[in-house]
Formats: sequence, structure tokens, C-alpha cells
Amino acid sequence: MTYKNLDSSSAFKQLQAMPASNLKHVLNPARIKTYHAKAGGGLTYHYGAMPIAEEHLNVLQQLSEELSLTEKYQAVVDGQVMNTGEKRLVLHHLSRGQVGKPVSADGEDKGAFYQAQLQKIERFSSQVRSGAILGSTGKKFSTVVQIGIGGSDLGPRALYLALKGWCASKEIELIDAQFISNVDPDDAQAVLNNLDLESTLFILVSKSGTTLETLTNRDLVIQAIEASGIRGIDPAKHMVAVTSKTSPLATSSSVLESFFIDDYIGGRYSSTSAVGAVVLSLSFGFDVFNSLLDGAHEADVLALNPNIKENAALLDALLGVYLRNVLLYPTTAILPYSQALSRFPAHLQQLDMESNGKHVNRDGLSISYPTGPVIFGEPGTNGQHSFYQLLHQGTDIVPLQFIGFSESQYHKDIVVEGSTSQEKLSANLVAQIVAFALGKDDVKPNKQFTGNRPSSLLSARQLDPQALGALLAHYENKVMFQGFIWNLNSFDQEGVQLGKVLATKVLDGCKGDEVLKAFSELL
Amino acid sequence: MTYKNLDSSSAFKQLQAMPASNLKHVLNPARIKTYHAKAGGGLTYHYGAMPIAEEHLNVLQQLSEELSLTEKYQAVVDGQVMNTGEKRLVLHHLSRGQVGKPVSADGEDKGAFYQAQLQKIERFSSQVRSGAILGSTGKKFSTVVQIGIGGSDLGPRALYLALKGWCASKEIELIDAQFISNVDPDDAQAVLNNLDLESTLFILVSKSGTTLETLTNRDLVIQAIEASGIRGIDPAKHMVAVTSKTSPLATSSSVLESFFIDDYIGGRYSSTSAVGAVVLSLSFGFDVFNSLLDGAHEADVLALNPNIKENAALLDALLGVYLRNVLLYPTTAILPYSQALSRFPAHLQQLDMESNGKHVNRDGLSISYPTGPVIFGEPGTNGQHSFYQLLHQGTDIVPLQFIGFSESQYHKDIVVEGSTSQEKLSANLVAQIVAFALGKDDVKPNKQFTGNRPSSLLSARQLDPQALGALLAHYENKVMFQGFIWNLNSFDQEGVQLGKVLATKVLDGCKGDEVLKAFSELL
Repeated sequence: MTYKNLDSSSAFKQLQAMPASNLKHVLNPARIKTYHAKAGGGLTYHYGAMPIAEEHLNVLQQLSEELSLTEKYQAVVDGQVMNTGEKRLVLHHLSRGQVGKPVSADGEDKGAFYQAQLQKIERFSSQVRSGAILGSTGKKFSTVVQIGIGGSDLGPRALYLALKGWCASKEIELIDAQFISNVDPDDAQAVLNNLDLESTLFILVSKSGTTLETLTNRDLVIQAIEASGIRGIDPAKHMVAVTSKTSPLATSSSVLESFFIDDYIGGRYSSTSAVGAVVLSLSFGFDVFNSLLDGAHEADVLALNPNIKENAALLDALLGVYLRNVLLYPTTAILPYSQALSRFPAHLQQLDMESNGKHVNRDGLSISYPTGPVIFGEPGTNGQHSFYQLLHQGTDIVPLQFIGFSESQYHKDIVVEGSTSQEKLSANLVAQIVAFALGKDDVKPNKQFTGNRPSSLLSARQLDPQALGALLAHYENKVMFQGFIWNLNSFDQEGVQLGKVLATKVLDGCKGDEVLKAFSELL
Repeated sequence: MTYKNLDSSSAFKQLQAMPASNLKHVLNPARIKTYHAKAGGGLTYHYGAMPIAEEHLNVLQQLSEELSLTEKYQAVVDGQVMNTGEKRLVLHHLSRGQVGKPVSADGEDKGAFYQAQLQKIERFSSQVRSGAILGSTGKKFSTVVQIGIGGSDLGPRALYLALKGWCASKEIELIDAQFISNVDPDDAQAVLNNLDLESTLFILVSKSGTTLETLTNRDLVIQAIEASGIRGIDPAKHMVAVTSKTSPLATSSSVLESFFIDDYIGGRYSSTSAVGAVVLSLSFGFDVFNSLLDGAHEADVLALNPNIKENAALLDALLGVYLRNVLLYPTTAILPYSQALSRFPAHLQQLDMESNGKHVNRDGLSISYPTGPVIFGEPGTNGQHSFYQLLHQGTDIVPLQFIGFSESQYHKDIVVEGSTSQEKLSANLVAQIVAFALGKDDVKPNKQFTGNRPSSLLSARQLDPQALGALLAHYENKVMFQGFIWNLNSFDQEGVQLGKVLATKVLDGCKGDEVLKAFSELL
């Protein structure tokens, strides 16, 4: 297995010498119908509106082989130490199914460990949902509140919002979920203001059990419960923990139950571990969460295929590198045509930018090519009425990743001016792809659209648990493959440390650091 | 008054020849305490961590004079036709106070027109809040739902979320506001699922009265009311319109009341017009909204000052152009250390990217320098646990705009490990500014921070209505000044038209366009 920098790859040098395809010349119905790959969970990845042709795909296939991309993925799922900086295994795939060999670590079978947590979550969540476990004053739990930050917040929150409507349409009983993440005390207060504490279960999520934001918010919550004056209410009976076995929270008597995670699943990859499993199983029932795992596992298995035309995540990664490192586009927009995915771009921001926003390679040496792009996005059609102006007519080209579905979640729709809302939504998506690709000439320069703005589309029949699981895993695997291509360690986040150290110094009175002191006096 | 392209300015050429200041050399307490400008509403703009020195400021002052920046602003507020493409005045400043000469258009005094709308909104909102106006079945209104998209949604929503906590802390009675924007039918459905229709007032916002997304969502809402089976409920008594005088909604018997807007305030600039006034006055009471107008007006007046060191919006604009056009940074992050500003970056995305994401100048000629950057952001500390990795250690430099406050809104806080949450929040903000500016050496390359990553800070004591109004106006004025510098028309949005035309074509069966047809068959 070869580890080398992208710019020492011969396939990459070939790629750099190849001009991009002009979409105005190559886009035709046959290509649109051919350029796609299955992505699992009913999802399909379409790349007809990417500025490439067969010759690019051939070189990208060579690049994939030269850099041993699927072999490296195989090493991940086989339990090799792929988080080299922190000397850890990378096991998020195993949280949803076995893709490689059985993996042992810490003296236990890791697959069995994740399964055991899931079984515990299944049992606990069904007891809460049935009313077998009640709040300390005898009320049924009707709200859960996740207290966590970063990966303990963004992924689970995005998934919760994504499936809430689908569950409602299936008449699945819903336990409302809310989230407290920010150390800003107003975040907790805004949530606490609207809670019936007697019927609320808090989920405290911190791997180390020492995350300052999270523990502070826990203490705010406990204080609010104690100050509520509700007779007989016991905070410990309203809180569970998701943490590592060795954390101070693991055996704490201040929680009703603990569910375990480990060091082999990073925060931004943890939505399919107990970090997502507890809150989503409580909210929607375990079966819904399990279907999400199935979709993710299906995507994980597809990602082993060495043929890039049959491996959507790998192909998406390679095309993204072409846009980033050959065409030198610095940003990527995520544009889901589904309001349920309103916070999915925020999750991808963390997933992608925290994984691959790095300037040293896995051996700790500086690299001289661009790595992870800036990721941003909002749902269409809202984005159309906002920042699409720049996407169409700005001076920089922004590659676009569309996500769309044939059917709505609620199926509650009406015909206005001859079409349903869902038909309008899909028509807008299709129109945008074509407008970006082909543009439009006009005698008035401000009405001209240069076109040749590349996009891809991930589509499925409906945003259901399987499709959502596959969507999540597709991006995790894409980001992983891009990390391999850039020769990075995508699984650590050293860039967050300095800020933590300096924040502590500020709280300690700046310790003679005059610049820190001067800035702290501004607030 | 001179209109010319940025690259034909002699001050700009001087600027291009000037290397950036190295923050590691220039940052010191005296500079941090000196480099600031008042921004109105109690806000201060700090630019000590920008990579510039006195010589840059001198040339930026020359650039401002060479391009007549404050004179152009004066022309805006004096009612000249500054939206040249659409041949319209640009009057959003007048919606919050008179900055220039009295302005007449359409045979009326525009200041009086906006004032009259405000008076009508004050009267109506106080009647709803007092219960003098009730729902059609006799219930008091307890929820308002804004139906609108783009500027009718993003700005008002961001402002609503920003002040909700402040109002609660002042024990101001709150009417809950919700928003339906997306044509995705699941958006409306998710809101409708949780409404008590009898006590809900819908606010339909569409300038033309023909916005397809908005009218479709109105029809969805009316259908839901009619299908509710509630005896005696009358949809027309549960809906008001914010629209232009000439729109079909203006005199419609299907609404309880209409409030007027005009063509001289674009969607993304409309939060201080009736578009924001109706929903915010209903939710918080007119006095709160009026204080927001005061803060905005104060910022507008400050923006007239030709001395860039005393004009925060102008200086922010000029420094942004230095980062964009001399240092060639393609993106900008908006990082509010306040959970209440969670959707403010989304509003700024529209404001900035729709205004200045353009590649032809105001005369319709192509320009050869970068214009508006990609704007993105999430609140700190959440962002720290997400995309800050890339901001600290990515291969591209992203200029940062921090926003912070000394006090929380609720003032409900506790001491954990020796500090309050608010102190932790501020400490984190300060720590990040310094970490980005100064970086850190380390023997391990993956723990190295190169530093020299520029940031600015907008700070105030508290996020109250005045500070929020000033914050809103600061960015509007910054974007306007940048448009002048780039010689753009920042007030039209031709880039959204092509998508609309093609979407209609798709809904009409693609009319023989085979590429459209092939894409539409994917969904």
C-alpha cells in the first residue's frame, strides 16, 4: 500500500495537463442517463453535469489505483491504526455493520461492543417510549434534550430534523428532541424556558466526560431542575450519559443509565454510534434508527468497489479533487432540495472541514497543494432566493452538490397553477442544474450567464431512514477517500487545541499575556 | 462623482504594491486599544487583528476619496436612481430615519409613506397584542406565521431569533413567530402540524403578490384551515398581507389587513420595512422594533463620515476589499459568539452574495477582478467544535468576522470551575482572535499554527434591539460600500432569473428541451 503526496502521483500530473470538458458541448441526454452510480439506501449519484469525460474518468481510475484508495479503506475496516497522529483505529463503519475482518481492541471484540450498546439502547428506548421507565415524579417522558457539542450535536441534530417529518407521516409516535450545545448561557436558557421538566430526559454526551461546554450546560440544567421547586423531582432520574467506559460519567450515580462509546469513533463520525443512537431511538423508536444503520452499511459496502464507476463515494471524492486541485475551486456548496435537510450542510461543514482542513500530511510534513475546501449550504429553493446570485454570476466558480427526492415526506401537497409543490421543487432543482451548466447568452451583459458551473446530484425516491443513512455514509466515505488522496490523517483535529489552551489562559487572568489581556478588555 | 472600475484606481494600484503587515510583529496592546471605530447602537468595530498598518489606512482613505464612496452613499440617501439596472431609487435607509434630503417618488413623499406604514403597524400590532383584534372564532392570537422567501424570510427570521431571548428577559409578552418559506411542501406541513389555527395569524409577504413559492404556501395554509373542520373559522380573518400597493393582494378581501412596501427597498434590505416590521411588532411589540430602527439609523448616520477611521462600515468594506482583491482570499466567515445570532450568518449570505456576487459592472461591462466573496458562518463556540480546524490549519486563509457581547441576554448563568458561561464564551472569543493572529510554533508539524489569519470584531455590551439594528445596518452599509468599490449595481439580482424561466419550462413539460427532460427524469 503506497502512501504518497498527491503531487508526486503520475496520474495526478496527467490530470493536471487535461483541460476540463466544456459542459455546453458535452451535455446530452445519453450522458445524463449514463453518468451515475448507486450510492446505497436507494440513493443514486449523478455526475453528468461534471466537467469531465471518459478520458478524465480513466485517469481518475488510475489515480485511485496508484494511491491504493480502496485498499486504504479496506485497512480502515480491517482495524488498522489509520488515525496515525493519535495512534487509533477508525471504526465508525463497524458501528453499522461489519465491512472488513473482525476487529479486536482493548481486549474485546469491537463489533460485539457496538452491538451490545445498540441492544442496550433498543431496550432502554423501548422502555422509555412505552412508559415502563418514567420520570421521577411519575410522568411519561415526552421530550429528550441532547447536551453535547460538535459531533455530539451537529450530526444527531441534522438526522433528527431529517426524519421527524417522515416519522410523523408514518404515524410513528414522536418524542420531541431538543439540543443544547453552545457554552453561551442563552442557548440552554432558551431550551429550558419551554420544557416541562417532569417529562424531560436529558442526554449528556461527552466522550471524555470532561468537555467544559457540556459539563457547564449539564450544571445549568441541574440547577434549573433544583430551582424548579417541583416536589420530589430528582435530576439523576432525568439524565442519561453517552460517554467512554473510563469517563467519570460512566459509573456516576447522577445518571439513570450510561451508554458507551470509545476512542475509535471520532465526534464527527459518531452519529451512527451511541451518540446518535440514544437520542434518535428515543425520539423515533429503535427500528427507525436501525433502518438508518442499514442504509449506511449498504453505502459502506459499495465503497469497497475498486471500479470508480461503481463506487459513488470514491468517484465523488475523485471528482471533488479534480475541482479542487486541478481547477482550483476553493469552496463547495451543499444544496439539498428538502427542508428536512436544513441542518445537513452544517453537519457536512464539520465532517469535511474538520477532517481535511489540514496543511501537513499524515507523516507531519508540509504539503504544497490545496486540501479541504470551505463547505457551505442551505436548502433549495430558499438558497435560490438568497446566495444563488453569486453562484450564477459571481467571479468565482463554486462547485455544487445537489440533493433531491422525487417524493415529499408528508405527501401533503396541493396543485397550484397546474403543479404540486413537490413538482415545483423538483422542477426548480432540474432547472438550476441546467442553468448552471449551460448558462444563457443575452445582449445585456448583466443578463448573461456564462454557464460551465459544475454540479452533481444525489437523488432518491424519498428521504427515508435508509436513504438518510446512505447519504450520511456517502459523505463520510467521500471525505475519507479525499483524505487518502491528499495523504492526510482525516481523523484527528489538532487545530482545535490552541484555542482551548488560550481560552483557559484568559479565564486564568491571561497570565501576563498582554495581547490576550488587551483583547479581553474589549468585551 | 467618479464611477470607475477598481483596477483603474491609482490608490488601488498603490495598495496592490503594499505587502500585508505581519500580525506577529505588529499586534500589541496599544494597537488593540486604538484600532476601533463606533458602529452605532453601542457597537464598536475593532480591527487590530487585520494585517494592515497606518500606511495601508492612508491609502484606503485615498481609495475612498478617489471612488467618492461617501458621496455615492449620499446620493443613495438623497434619492438618486442608484439601482441603475432596474432604474430605481434605493431607500432602505429611509425606512428607519431620514439621512439625506426629503425624497419624492410615485407622487408621494417616501419618508411619509414609510412612516404611515409604521403607524399602521403600530396600531394593528397593539390591537392584536391587546386582544382588541381576535381570531375569527374569538381566540386571542398567540402565534404569527410569516409566509415569504428570500429577504421576506431570512432577515426577519434572523432578527426574531436574535431578540426573542432579550424580550423574554425583559418580561415582554411574546407572540411566538414561525416561518414558512420553502416550496417544499414538508416545510409548510412541519409548521402546520404544531399550530392552533384558531389563535394563529399568518403574514403573507410578497412584494409583487405573485411569488410562486409564497402563493403556493398560502394556498396550502388556506386548505389546511378549511380542512380543519373548526366551526366558523374564516381564513381571511387569519391573514394579513405585506405587499406593494399595486399588487393583487393589496385590496384583496382574503386578508384582514394590508401593509405596503415599494420597489425602492430590495428584499434583502427589507427587514426594517413592513417586511420585518409587521412580524417583529406583533411578536415583541412595536417599541422593541422601533428601538431596532433607532440603532440602524444611528449606524446609517455614522456611515456618512468621510474619515474612514470614524466610519466603521466604510472601513470594514475597505479592509474587506484589501483581503479580497489584494490578498485574494475567496471566502469570509461570520462568527457570532451569541446563540441568538444563529441565523444571522444566513441573512448575511443573502445580503452580501446576492448584492455583490456579480461579474459585470454597473454599466454592464465585464470586470476582471474578484467581487463578492462566499460568506458562511455558525455561532461560536459551536463552530470551534466544527469547522475551525480548517480555519486554523487549512491550506487557504479565511478572513474572520467575529461578533461578541459582554453580557448574555437572559443573565441566567452559573459559575462552573471558577467562571460563568458568559465568561467562558468571551474567553473563547478572545482566545480565538489571538490564536488565529499569532499561531503557535511546535516541534510537531501537525501541532503548528502558522497564524497571520486576519479577523475583526464587532462588540457591544449586550445584544439588545439597538445593537441588533446597528449590526444589521452596519453590514448593509458595508456591502453597499463594497459594491461602490467594485463599481457594481448591488441592488438588482439578475442571476436568479434564468432558473425561474427554466423551472417554468420544466413544469410545462420541458417544451422539447432534451437536456432538461433527461435531468427531470432523474427525479
